Amino acid sequence: MSQTNQPLGGNTMPRMGGPATMMRLPSQPTAEGLDACFVGIPMDIGTSNRSGTRLGPRQIRDESRMIRPYNMATRAAPFERMQVADIGDVPINTFDLKKSVEIIAQTYREILRHDVVPLTLGGDHTLTWPILRAMAEKHGPVALIHVDAHSDTNEHMFGEEAAHGCPFRRAHEEGLLRDDMVFQIGLRGSGYSPEDFDWGREKGWTVTPAEACWHKSLTPLMDDIRARIGDHPVYLSYDIDSLDPAFAPGTGTVEVGGLTTIQGLEIIRGCTGLNIVGTDLVEVSPPYDTTGNTAVIAANYLFEMLCVLPET
Amino acid sequence: MSQTNQPLGGNTMPRMGGPATMMRLPSQPTAEGLDACFVGIPMDIGTSNRSGTRLGPRQIRDESRMIRPYNMATRAAPFERMQVADIGDVPINTFDLKKSVEIIAQTYREILRHDVVPLTLGGDHTLTWPILRAMAEKHGPVALIHVDAHSDTNEHMFGEEAAHGCPFRRAHEEGLLRDDMVFQIGLRGSGYSPEDFDWGREKGWTVTPAEACWHKSLTPLMDDIRARIGDHPVYLSYDIDSLDPAFAPGTGTVEVGGLTTIQGLEIIRGCTGLNIVGTDLVEVSPPYDTTGNTAVIAANYLFEMLCVLPET
Amino acid sequence: MSQTNQPLGGNTMPRMGGPATMMRLPSQPTAEGLDACFVGIPMDIGTSNRSGTRLGPRQIRDESRMIRPYNMATRAAPFERMQVADIGDVPINTFDLKKSVEIIAQTYREILRHDVVPLTLGGDHTLTWPILRAMAEKHGPVALIHVDAHSDTNEHMFGEEAAHGCPFRRAHEEGLLRDDMVFQIGLRGSGYSPEDFDWGREKGWTVTPAEACWHKSLTPLMDDIRARIGDHPVYLSYDIDSLDPAFAPGTGTVEVGGLTTIQGLEIIRGCTGLNIVGTDLVEVSPPYDTTGNTAVIAANYLFEMLCVLPET
Amino acid sequence: MSQTNQPLGGNTMPRMGGPATMMRLPSQPTAEGLDACFVGIPMDIGTSNRSGTRLGPRQIRDESRMIRPYNMATRAAPFERMQVADIGDVPINTFDLKKSVEIIAQTYREILRHDVVPLTLGGDHTLTWPILRAMAEKHGPVALIHVDAHSDTNEHMFGEEAAHGCPFRRAHEEGLLRDDMVFQIGLRGSGYSPEDFDWGREKGWTVTPAEACWHKSLTPLMDDIRARIGDHPVYLSYDIDSLDPAFAPGTGTVEVGGLTTIQGLEIIRGCTGLNIVGTDLVEVSPPYDTTGNTAVIAANYLFEMLCVLPET
Amino acid sequence: MSQTNQPLGGNTMPRMGGPATMMRLPSQPTAEGLDACFVGIPMDIGTSNRSGTRLGPRQIRDESRMIRPYNMATRAAPFERMQVADIGDVPINTFDLKKSVEIIAQTYREILRHDVVPLTLGGDHTLTWPILRAMAEKHGPVALIHVDAHSDTNEHMFGEEAAHGCPFRRAHEEGLLRDDMVFQIGLRGSGYSPEDFDWGREKGWTVTPAEACWHKSLTPLMDDIRARIGDHPVYLSYDIDSLDPAFAPGTGTVEVGGLTTIQGLEIIRGCTGLNIVGTDLVEVSPPYDTTGNTAVIAANYLFEMLCVLPET
Amino acid sequence: MSQTNQPLGGNTMPRMGGPATMMRLPSQPTAEGLDACFVGIPMDIGTSNRSGTRLGPRQIRDESRMIRPYNMATRAAPFERMQVADIGDVPINTFDLKKSVEIIAQTYREILRHDVVPLTLGGDHTLTWPILRAMAEKHGPVALIHVDAHSDTNEHMFGEEAAHGCPFRRAHEEGLLRDDMVFQIGLRGSGYSPEDFDWGREKGWTVTPAEACWHKSLTPLMDDIRARIGDHPVYLSYDIDSLDPAFAPGTGTVEVGGLTTIQGLEIIRGCTGLNIVGTDLVEVSPPYDTTGNTAVIAANYLFEMLCVLPET
Repeated sequence: MSQTNQPLGGNTMPRMGGPATMMRLPSQPTAEGLDACFVGIPMDIGTSNRSGTRLGPRQIRDESRMIRPYNMATRAAPFERMQVADIGDVPINTFDLKKSVEIIAQTYREILRHDVVPLTLGGDHTLTWPILRAMAEKHGPVALIHVDAHSDTNEHMFGEEAAHGCPFRRAHEEGLLRDDMVFQIGLRGSGYSPEDFDWGREKGWTVTPAEACWHKSLTPLMDDIRARIGDHPVYLSYDIDSLDPAFAPGTGTVEVGGLTTIQGLEIIRGCTGLNIVGTDLVEVSPPYDTTGNTAVIAANYLFEMLCVLPET
Repeated sequence: MSQTNQPLGGNTMPRMGGPATMMRLPSQPTAEGLDACFVGIPMDIGTSNRSGTRLGPRQIRDESRMIRPYNMATRAAPFERMQVADIGDVPINTFDLKKSVEIIAQTYREILRHDVVPLTLGGDHTLTWPILRAMAEKHGPVALIHVDAHSDTNEHMFGEEAAHGCPFRRAHEEGLLRDDMVFQIGLRGSGYSPEDFDWGREKGWTVTPAEACWHKSLTPLMDDIRARIGDHPVYLSYDIDSLDPAFAPGTGTVEVGGLTTIQGLEIIRGCTGLNIVGTDLVEVSPPYDTTGNTAVIAANYLFEMLCVLPET
Repeated sequence: MSQTNQPLGGNTMPRMGGPATMMRLPSQPTAEGLDACFVGIPMDIGTSNRSGTRLGPRQIRDESRMIRPYNMATRAAPFERMQVADIGDVPINTFDLKKSVEIIAQTYREILRHDVVPLTLGGDHTLTWPILRAMAEKHGPVALIHVDAHSDTNEHMFGEEAAHGCPFRRAHEEGLLRDDMVFQIGLRGSGYSPEDFDWGREKGWTVTPAEACWHKSLTPLMDDIRARIGDHPVYLSYDIDSLDPAFAPGTGTVEVGGLTTIQGLEIIRGCTGLNIVGTDLVEVSPPYDTTGNTAVIAANYLFEMLCVLPET
Repeated sequence: MSQTNQPLGGNTMPRMGGPATMMRLPSQPTAEGLDACFVGIPMDIGTSNRSGTRLGPRQIRDESRMIRPYNMATRAAPFERMQVADIGDVPINTFDLKKSVEIIAQTYREILRHDVVPLTLGGDHTLTWPILRAMAEKHGPVALIHVDAHSDTNEHMFGEEAAHGCPFRRAHEEGLLRDDMVFQIGLRGSGYSPEDFDWGREKGWTVTPAEACWHKSLTPLMDDIRARIGDHPVYLSYDIDSLDPAFAPGTGTVEVGGLTTIQGLEIIRGCTGLNIVGTDLVEVSPPYDTTGNTAVIAANYLFEMLCVLPET
Repeated sequence: MSQTNQPLGGNTMPRMGGPATMMRLPSQPTAEGLDACFVGIPMDIGTSNRSGTRLGPRQIRDESRMIRPYNMATRAAPFERMQVADIGDVPINTFDLKKSVEIIAQTYREILRHDVVPLTLGGDHTLTWPILRAMAEKHGPVALIHVDAHSDTNEHMFGEEAAHGCPFRRAHEEGLLRDDMVFQIGLRGSGYSPEDFDWGREKGWTVTPAEACWHKSLTPLMDDIRARIGDHPVYLSYDIDSLDPAFAPGTGTVEVGGLTTIQGLEIIRGCTGLNIVGTDLVEVSPPYDTTGNTAVIAANYLFEMLCVLPET
Repeated sequence: MSQTNQPLGGNTMPRMGGPATMMRLPSQPTAEGLDACFVGIPMDIGTSNRSGTRLGPRQIRDESRMIRPYNMATRAAPFERMQVADIGDVPINTFDLKKSVEIIAQTYREILRHDVVPLTLGGDHTLTWPILRAMAEKHGPVALIHVDAHSDTNEHMFGEEAAHGCPFRRAHEEGLLRDDMVFQIGLRGSGYSPEDFDWGREKGWTVTPAEACWHKSLTPLMDDIRARIGDHPVYLSYDIDSLDPAFAPGTGTVEVGGLTTIQGLEIIRGCTGLNIVGTDLVEVSPPYDTTGNTAVIAANYLFEMLCVLPET
């Protein structure tokens, strides 16, 4: 019998009860003693169209209540080997995005003082910028797998450097990324110019637009990505809007013709063996998630991320 | 500065973050050391029409996040004098209503071993029956203020004794109530015969149908009720369907022409000075609460109940 | 024990099952042998803003499933004395409003060959015009109690005579109404000119705008109306948008500051003793009735109408 | 011209009117004289997470109103050869699951006294257990095609034998199944241990997890299944949560990465030629079916099942 | 025939078509030549709980499409005497609240260079602060009628001066208000301390909490307010959350026991004769306005404000 | 720098503000001077099941606000070469379908007096009939690419010639189509007889049912279609219900097993090089589009249509 934290089981407490933590895991205030931790960032002031992602962490936790501890497909049992807990939310300043960026960076520096892999529940995509700062301070420039409908490499939005369309440009400028190990998957839709997707390519990034993913398994793509990253520390940033809105309606900047949830699972499961140092799942907007199922996907994807961590 | 538990403040953690406990209070596994506690009962297998109340406790807690510690109208500051926490949910058996009734009774016996007033988040109205059992075991037959669209005094439903339309008949039969101190407020709608409301009257109960509440303040009614109860231990059972569905759409057995939320506040605030030994707020059904506002009302009413406890 | 039709009881079949007829009553194809009948008219092509009332009859029937046979407030037991059934829907031509008007008139002529009071589930308000034709053919010009946010006396809409804003002008022009016994209650909102409400007044109608109903019981108003109608045949046309949208959001031409459901009950119950020859409940639009509660009100109001029929 | 029952046509009564029976077919109280019948079981007290399936039969019937009598793809015309009707709902005891199991078994024994194929509208998946009992009493152990996200072979849930996660374990234990002819399709998600899916395999069942279905047609799988079942009596149990939640959001225990509706059609159409003795479509939960489209799928799948019955 | 702008009529273009401007009025880029103008501020980054008010202006305009030009109750015909247009939205910086405050102030300075009364469609309540700045620069300190559930006089929120809970404290500090002519109506709910409502009182403001409004007409209150303001320039700031959530569910910081829409109409109509120099209607959050009816109320209230402008 | 109209950019005005025109383009009252124009037809009186498409144009415009001017996948930049504007809505007679057919035909005759390609925002599918009339008057019989779940070739519906199930039969009868160049894609579901789909085949049309599209790219199909049409004038009529309801829930006559949005993009992008003279996107029904995402798809598809116009 394991002595690690276990999700509260459905035969101990009905699924609709129990603590509204991630997977009904125990909560603790810091990452001390943990191998992996779930962290929420209840923020939407970096969004440019529909808002509402500030309630993402609460909704993802709520809808995570059905997830059981064992992954039927991959046979991973993450809670057998790792100590995992929910360490609550980052107290962002909901009236000032720039200050929130600093608060997030500082919080993750604290988290990373422990030997722990943080899995972040967003919140809008601005948050990946300060997380990457803390990651690079600890690990040096990291490899990046970025799944998204958008490249998020705008120079500015409305003249601002901090916005949900800019985090990876900022990360590049600050030297947080290994440009030869940046992989963007799922980009599509309309833009202002070809530069929207080509900017990264010019830096050496590998961009796989959605159209290159249509009608096929992404397992071969992930085989290739794994080969190119090897054992370098890698960060996985998963924007729920990478998925087609049929699968994930509950988000703010919807683009048609996106990935299926099956492809999303192939991407995450395709990270098995990588040296993952952190992950996030961002842009779930509960007011547009009328059935709660977008949050269900997000919760499952975070569980799948846990299942591919090195210690699992 | 108080040393008691305080709700997590909005200037410490944004309202959309923090633990999804009642009012973002600390949680603890038992009622030990508490003056009052919030308890959830995630049950809907006693409902007869629409279900969904099993998710009531989670939703009420979620939507309680905006409530601040001070009551602007009554000037009550319950957290200054009382130690309050959220003690989680009762692990009912979601496949067997009769066993759940026993589990609830046993859980409240445990709770009432402490000198604490439990405020229950329902859950369907069946739950009041076993709670009253535990109450009467400790306090003897209790006075009852029962706010509801229905009398809930059916002899049986589909031949069953345990159902959300029967708890007060059961409580009477088991001698849990002071029949001269039972007050039912808000009853209305259609029924099978006059006995639906007259059964209680024949036992000495005071029934105030909704029609007698129309177009007026209920403060005088509560003055009268207080005078008649005096300092006898009293239990307050508040069914959200007592409110007109305009105010509380998120419930399962809707009846038109009900109370306003203002009248509901008058009822609860009118309990000031009574010797309240327990309260519940039942029948919130989140799937029918499309805006979350029925849960907001429920959360506020539970806070208002806290504000009229004897120790406040 | 009555040998008349009875609504299927909740202890015989759970409320969520059984036939989706009005009140789970038996259905039959004609009005033969009935004292009162429920009829649906699934029409919305007479609406001018939001549509959707074509699904009104289905939704009202579905949500009528909770109504029990006895009226707790008025002590009416309509199924003890009357034979009542659901006779289904009028097969309107959903692509041609003018033809639908004719189909409705002809259908009601057939219904009224029997000695029966039809209670109509709408559908948009255009339908009252052809019903009144059939009524007047049988009874001569009828008295009218018309509860609505709008006067529905437009000369034309978009140049058309048949539209949901015109039925009472048409009825007047065709001599279907006793102008000294027309009572409009609840009118309000914006219009094109004073004539919108004054046109009826000039014909001798009594117009009670919503503002004259605010903050008070409508029982005195109904006392007066009863006195003025006496035993003349009277038709009751109830537009759900007479109610404030807080109570009845599920409708298409919403006006603020309307009646409460309590006032609506006072109006219908205030018809006790009148010689009612027909009633309708119109303009429920299920796509905008996100909780189903507007249909619940409509179903209950139709039951209340049954409870005030002369034979009850 | 056929003398069999026909669905009420859209040129006779607009689609939004007419009886809310399955496909607007005639209803009758028993299965007498029928080749196939639709039966509803309005139950959700066997669910473990979100409830609401009690309203499934009503919603499926409502949304079946668009289905015309001829299958454009398969050229089946089921109403030309078979006598079909809607025989209403099973009067389950909504407060006692164990008694409901007995009521269902007894009701299906009665139905199966006639030479009829029942197509069941659920309701939660617990119902398949008692149906299989009645099936095996008539036909001996049956072959089973079970489409689902879950194996539903739990030994217990919360200590109970009757629950929506247990029916196929019970059926095996009672000898109701031909273990060499049990096919489970679509299983996926998280579990408690490998046994969740392996238990059946150990009994000889063929388990095709969702991952084995990704990116491909299921027609070859069905070819194989047909070959292995031959003309043995077979029961088809279709849990709507086998579908990915993108297609069928209106259900209670959602798992990502599921089947497409196209694959579902391939499965059902792939049953052509089998000796089907009964089918069910379970777990539609209307409160989570915000557009009604999950019920539309369910209704169409039930029609497709009708189209592959031996007599068609 | 008037030569002023007229709302596009329903007999010229169906209500569901035409431009999605306020009341389907013509739009123009500046306030030049106008007596009154509608302006939108699509902002929600000043909200502290639920967001979404950024879409308020779009939704209010959309749902204003039913409003006709004549006020049936007050007999006001605002378009006969005034030139009115929709001048579009303020281009706030959606990533920086402090900059947005400056942009709003500057935009209103431009607007007020014309002799025009701006009626603002919010947007969160932060926006009233910069509008009042521009107002006071033109008119000197203004009288204020502030209808709201909250006093919005917090010193800071999360340490910030700009937030939707602070505008009237800022306005006072900057000397923008006539403290003897500030009237707050509808305040209620929970708070941090008595100071939440008393701060204004100490400055000389008149605070009428919701409890003082219960069960009565507010016409006498408005008579008193008018007498005290006389002909001093007055600004009307209407927060939709002043209304009870039964009436206005579509907002972010819900408090129970609020005003009715009737009382809201009494307040606005009670401003007839005042020297109104500007108004706003704030805090409509479309994602929580599931039927669109909160926006309908907002649109009608803005029309009612137009009807009480001095020139009408 | 282009002198043509440009969509209002997100760095000039936040996406949630600005005019609610298509893509936030300038509007003008006629098509004069335009190469392409967006036109709305707010009609639903031709629908046979769920209504609501009358609000389609408003909703599509609203949700088009996110679309940027450059097509990332095809590298089309339509606003660089073409002058495009939104010319508003057709003032249909919402109470008379036959008159509306005439109004539409006449309006398109006016539009086509200019050398402009109209892209129509529906509205129910009846509208394509009168548009094709105007098209054929200008161009002679046109080629047709018709993407739909239904063939829309009914002889009558309820005896009527004008209905949303009949436009292409009417068009054929009036000689508006080149029968050798009519391509129907996506047909499926149930029908009254084989003739539903075979009628067109008998006229020489090419019918590709949905089943023939399953599990594959439609790019080869479009290659073939382009080859067969050559440079003949072609009209593209896109019914949103061609898509599976998982992708496009917001429509009225839902059929399962439909196209994916990826296939829809392949169809539209596969029109590159054709001589497109007009397009429409019909049957979006906002009341059933609970997240707005069906309108997002519609808006993007209209943008994609713009991107394949000959002048782009």
